[in-house]
Amino acid sequence: MNAPVPTHVLPQFEARPVPAEMLAALKVRFGERCSVALAVREQHGRDESPFDVPPPDAVVYAESTEDVAFVVELAGRHAVPVIPFGVGSSLEGHLLAVQGGVSIDLSRMNAVLSVQPEDLTVTVQAGVTRTQLNDEIRHTGLFFPVDPGADATLGGMCATRASGTNAVRYGTMRENVLALTVVTASGEVIRTGTRARKSAAGYDLTRLVVGSEGTLGVIAEVTLKLYPLPEAVSAAVCHFADIAAAVRTTIQVIQMGVPIARCELLDANAVRAVNLHDRLALRESPMLLMEFHGSAASVQEQAATVQEVASEFGGEDFQWATTPEERTRLWTARHHAYFAGLQTKPGCRAVTTDTCVPISRLTECVTLAKAEAEAAGLPHYIVGHVGDGNFHIAYLIDPTIPAERETAERLNQALVQRAIAMEGTCSGEHGIGLHKQGFLLDEAGVGAVEMMRAVKRALDPKNIMNPGKIFVV
Amino acid sequence: MNAPVPTHVLPQFEARPVPAEMLAALKVRFGERCSVALAVREQHGRDESPFDVPPPDAVVYAESTEDVAFVVELAGRHAVPVIPFGVGSSLEGHLLAVQGGVSIDLSRMNAVLSVQPEDLTVTVQAGVTRTQLNDEIRHTGLFFPVDPGADATLGGMCATRASGTNAVRYGTMRENVLALTVVTASGEVIRTGTRARKSAAGYDLTRLVVGSEGTLGVIAEVTLKLYPLPEAVSAAVCHFADIAAAVRTTIQVIQMGVPIARCELLDANAVRAVNLHDRLALRESPMLLMEFHGSAASVQEQAATVQEVASEFGGEDFQWATTPEERTRLWTARHHAYFAGLQTKPGCRAVTTDTCVPISRLTECVTLAKAEAEAAGLPHYIVGHVGDGNFHIAYLIDPTIPAERETAERLNQALVQRAIAMEGTCSGEHGIGLHKQGFLLDEAGVGAVEMMRAVKRALDPKNIMNPGKIFVV
Repeated sequence: MNAPVPTHVLPQFEARPVPAEMLAALKVRFGERCSVALAVREQHGRDESPFDVPPPDAVVYAESTEDVAFVVELAGRHAVPVIPFGVGSSLEGHLLAVQGGVSIDLSRMNAVLSVQPEDLTVTVQAGVTRTQLNDEIRHTGLFFPVDPGADATLGGMCATRASGTNAVRYGTMRENVLALTVVTASGEVIRTGTRARKSAAGYDLTRLVVGSEGTLGVIAEVTLKLYPLPEAVSAAVCHFADIAAAVRTTIQVIQMGVPIARCELLDANAVRAVNLHDRLALRESPMLLMEFHGSAASVQEQAATVQEVASEFGGEDFQWATTPEERTRLWTARHHAYFAGLQTKPGCRAVTTDTCVPISRLTECVTLAKAEAEAAGLPHYIVGHVGDGNFHIAYLIDPTIPAERETAERLNQALVQRAIAMEGTCSGEHGIGLHKQGFLLDEAGVGAVEMMRAVKRALDPKNIMNPGKIFVV
Repeated sequence: MNAPVPTHVLPQFEARPVPAEMLAALKVRFGERCSVALAVREQHGRDESPFDVPPPDAVVYAESTEDVAFVVELAGRHAVPVIPFGVGSSLEGHLLAVQGGVSIDLSRMNAVLSVQPEDLTVTVQAGVTRTQLNDEIRHTGLFFPVDPGADATLGGMCATRASGTNAVRYGTMRENVLALTVVTASGEVIRTGTRARKSAAGYDLTRLVVGSEGTLGVIAEVTLKLYPLPEAVSAAVCHFADIAAAVRTTIQVIQMGVPIARCELLDANAVRAVNLHDRLALRESPMLLMEFHGSAASVQEQAATVQEVASEFGGEDFQWATTPEERTRLWTARHHAYFAGLQTKPGCRAVTTDTCVPISRLTECVTLAKAEAEAAGLPHYIVGHVGDGNFHIAYLIDPTIPAERETAERLNQALVQRAIAMEGTCSGEHGIGLHKQGFLLDEAGVGAVEMMRAVKRALDPKNIMNPGKIFVV
């Protein structure tokens, strides 16, 4: 067992560069689709985490599962790391080439391979993004609900077990992936499941790979569940005097079993940031941004119930966004919160927390985190998928001032320890990556992490699949 | 790679009996809670599958996680098999001690450890049965929906990734287990998750163990999601002229996104059997038995929609079961279908199929299977969780007539191959056990099964955890 990795320091890894012979083989097969240009490599060794960039040695633009298998098989022979890349929107250092190696860019594998509207299923290549998918299937009257904000690729969303605003009703990638085509560490192509909606046939390889952050194989194709577009949709904003009132409203709504489709918290700082960024005029106080899906009658019933609960906690009257345009405007603003927040402090980077706790502990968890951030004097904002018990504080730090990063890490550490003590998790949806390896040990315990490492060693004996992420093998 | 195991012949396994020294150590710790009486051993080497009984060498009645860990640790030192036992209701030979060893009976580990109504979660010992759980939490206004018919233990339901009548709305054990306490092959006790409703923290050990049929560890405790008891519930029976019409109704209801809570098909043979067994007077034609959950208005809306669809396919008017007593009577009869069916042919055993296909293929899959069963002249009945695409044909065979078993196996084989060709699975909810190992290979492919075997070898290097099940290591 290795010692826990400190959360704010990159572990030191031995370089495993791509040998000349391998690079030559890549060039022969891929030509211009294999790049060693520094700008390209740096772009592929970066994500939205606050870590510095160790670039891969080469970037290959895959156009087929066979391309991926070719690279992985070759990398295996040379014991060189392989790092899958979608659009680079992950947050925990997943894409950083800590030992060098080859980044496989899957963004050109962007075909929707087959839609089966009558089965509510679709199969896509891993590089299809969630908005592309929803655009391409709109004519079927179906949609894919999982929405992490960023327009991530579906392969990337599988790899990090993403969720986001709709998860409170529709579940996360854990619940919505039926099967994957995976290139394993030996370069073999396997399918992890079928299109049946349930199965008891052997180990759940689908869910073993979902959330494995590229460490067990490269996801090449994804079969997903789809849902009928709801007959009626309405969105509402509700302002509260303080965060606790907004969270208490959420808790009661969830406990009552209201099938709310989205229930997002923004603190006053987040509202201020999206007002500036998206030229909105929302009242700058804590607010819930909600959406209701269902039949017309059901949507009305849900909204009435939630308005009643909100009123009990001092929430103002709902402001409705009933047209699709108004709704889109609000949700676009919500999705811009991350970049809107960054723009409130020029040159800053965000250290983003991702705790998720049992809903009964959420008020305490959020309000303490807020108070600590205020006391530390670090600019920050809070957004939360509060219906799930998941929220993010982004601490906006000046990367040139080490003390700011240390303060942010100290606050995050305190928050995670509290979330774990509340029987919650250090990561609701962003994953472990490089950033949270120490937290994973605290949360899961040595025995469980050792079980994960045993699986990793068995399935990737040469440790070529995105090495150094989740844990050190 | 071993050759596929023929589906109807038990593979030959080398005996790995419990050595005297180990038995002595078990006797010292457990006294009367360790039994070697033949009747006790035979009861623990048997399930509802049509296989003969190879009994374990000893049975230990565990009363705590520490008891389980003690047995497993000892078994590991002696390289002796360990087979977890709940109530013995599995169907695929999971409990047969093909190499001898120790059966760990978990039925005395039947405490509901903690309920958190405000979080909609509960933690139980693995030996708690689903009806016991629902009885004990009724005062909270919550319930656990997964309902495989048999009053199985929750540990057993995790082990086989069970589902049943409510899965169409509430999901299977895959979706409803938050975390497990597992005794690993080394005798270590780990937790696979937290009480947070979602997590992206490392490999999904919970879902790796759910459905692993005792081959990766012994499940000692289970943390589950709960749901508010619906405000309104109503059940209805609808008769059809033929199976196809009933299935087409189901397909359209699912495609429309109606949140139906249960949607069960019974063919005329199954209706006849439950009429006899439960003294009901249902019309002996194919029928759907449905249940609707929600607010009063929503239940009414759902039922009206489904009635309209059923009418399009020639379904008769719904017969309502509105009182709890009437509903219980109908669902109890449905749950008795298995034993009711057995009683229609004295001395018979059932060979039960478990295919699950994408819903658009269900009509074809069911009607062909029915026609083949009729043509073969073997007594049979069909029940199906048709909202999921999952159905069971039980072929009632005389175990003393080999030709009947061969016919049943031939029919099952044809059905499974067709289901796989339809992108479905050989097992929707019963698991692989001993019976479907060849089917698993056909369905998942050598590469995927090899990946499962690699995981098994890594986590259970001495192959002590329920050896011989799912695949041969």
